[in-house]
Amino acid sequence: MVYQVKKIKKIIESIKDTEYFQQAFLHTSYLNELKLMRKVDSEQDSENNLKSSYETLEFLGDSVINFYTSLFIYHRFPNYAEGQMSKLKQLMVQESTLAHLSKEIGLGEFLQLGTGERKNRGAEKESILADVFESFVAALYLEKGGKMVQRFLNLTIFTWVAGKENMVWDYKSQLQEYCQARKNRIIYRLKKTIRAEKQQLFIMEVSDGLGTFRESGKGRSKKEAEQQAAAKVIKKLGIGENHPQES
Amino acid sequence: MVYQVKKIKKIIESIKDTEYFQQAFLHTSYLNELKLMRKVDSEQDSENNLKSSYETLEFLGDSVINFYTSLFIYHRFPNYAEGQMSKLKQLMVQESTLAHLSKEIGLGEFLQLGTGERKNRGAEKESILADVFESFVAALYLEKGGKMVQRFLNLTIFTWVAGKENMVWDYKSQLQEYCQARKNRIIYRLKKTIRAEKQQLFIMEVSDGLGTFRESGKGRSKKEAEQQAAAKVIKKLGIGENHPQES
Repeated sequence: MVYQVKKIKKIIESIKDTEYFQQAFLHTSYLNELKLMRKVDSEQDSENNLKSSYETLEFLGDSVINFYTSLFIYHRFPNYAEGQMSKLKQLMVQESTLAHLSKEIGLGEFLQLGTGERKNRGAEKESILADVFESFVAALYLEKGGKMVQRFLNLTIFTWVAGKENMVWDYKSQLQEYCQARKNRIIYRLKKTIRAEKQQLFIMEVSDGLGTFRESGKGRSKKEAEQQAAAKVIKKLGIGENHPQES
Repeated sequence: MVYQVKKIKKIIESIKDTEYFQQAFLHTSYLNELKLMRKVDSEQDSENNLKSSYETLEFLGDSVINFYTSLFIYHRFPNYAEGQMSKLKQLMVQESTLAHLSKEIGLGEFLQLGTGERKNRGAEKESILADVFESFVAALYLEKGGKMVQRFLNLTIFTWVAGKENMVWDYKSQLQEYCQARKNRIIYRLKKTIRAEKQQLFIMEVSDGLGTFRESGKGRSKKEAEQQAAAKVIKKLGIGENHPQES
């Protein structure tokens, strides 16, 4: 996947001098070291001007990402069932995805880690990389608002997921496999096309040679409609739980 | 808790004639009945003009509520640790809370249930009542945007939680209990007050008669600062996991 790194860097740069940005990359291990040093350096009350680590921004960022990702899925895949939406979202916001993106766009380089964590190569840890993706998004939200966050997610998570929907939800392949094992044959046929407002909708029907099933699916492309039809068959026949495949 | 029901009803009324509103209260059981009737009534393709049930709106509404609730907590309780924020959020968005609110503001009356579900008193089920709180919020978001959702949540969840923060996070009481059992005595004292920008901050110190602990906490009120100090002691002494209490 090729990301528009220049555009992404520009967004990162735009808030680089803010306090929220500083906090977004401040790991507890660094803060603890800082506290320790100050205690040694002077007797003054350290409660006063010590910064916070990134955890609370991470808390906020998590739900900011969840929200815009849900909104993206809801608008982009209006024909998905709730279960499909949930699983796709899970894939998009899971630790490995956010850590991958964090690495791609170089968020790790801003991390402030304590000595121990630095020695442990903390800046390469999946959990920490995913954390700062979230805390950075929160900082971006607080500094620039929702529109900018949407732009940033468009360039990262929503770019990452493009083309993966079908890999994740390949009901057609699942059904194919099931039928092949039973020497059964699958037939897809176009049942109807509908012009609804500005878009065209296809209704595809799937049935089999042995006459065990017949279902229809709706979609903005024939493939999408076929996937929906296949999904219905899989549900009716009760073929296994469909966990999203890592890709 | 007294809710401003008039204001809430006005918000509900404002989208009552929209398709999203219709969908937000359409339970699968009703939809299935509808499909069955149409199949009996006519041979026409039912894919075409059948509505969807509320599940996908519920999917969206869940993350809308999560987002605005996180934002509320982040701004309202800036001194909370991440763990406290998470637990408070969990309390605010959990099924029993949303179901309670749904009942209080009469969302159940709009539900469209199938005959079976109606006989089972589906409109009184916690799970269904919580579902439609979420799907309604999604409909409100899609029709009126985020500002209106915030207004609605202010009148419902954020009103509900007012005053409950301390009941949930009563570290002082926990510490009191712990010390009493050990014939130990707790001393709170004001250590410092700070003027930071527009607000005043208090730093309170907590220690004990036996000299086992001494911690400081910061807050916008003395009570908040004491709570934070007590929380630190509880963490250091490793006194149990602090699950939020139902209230």
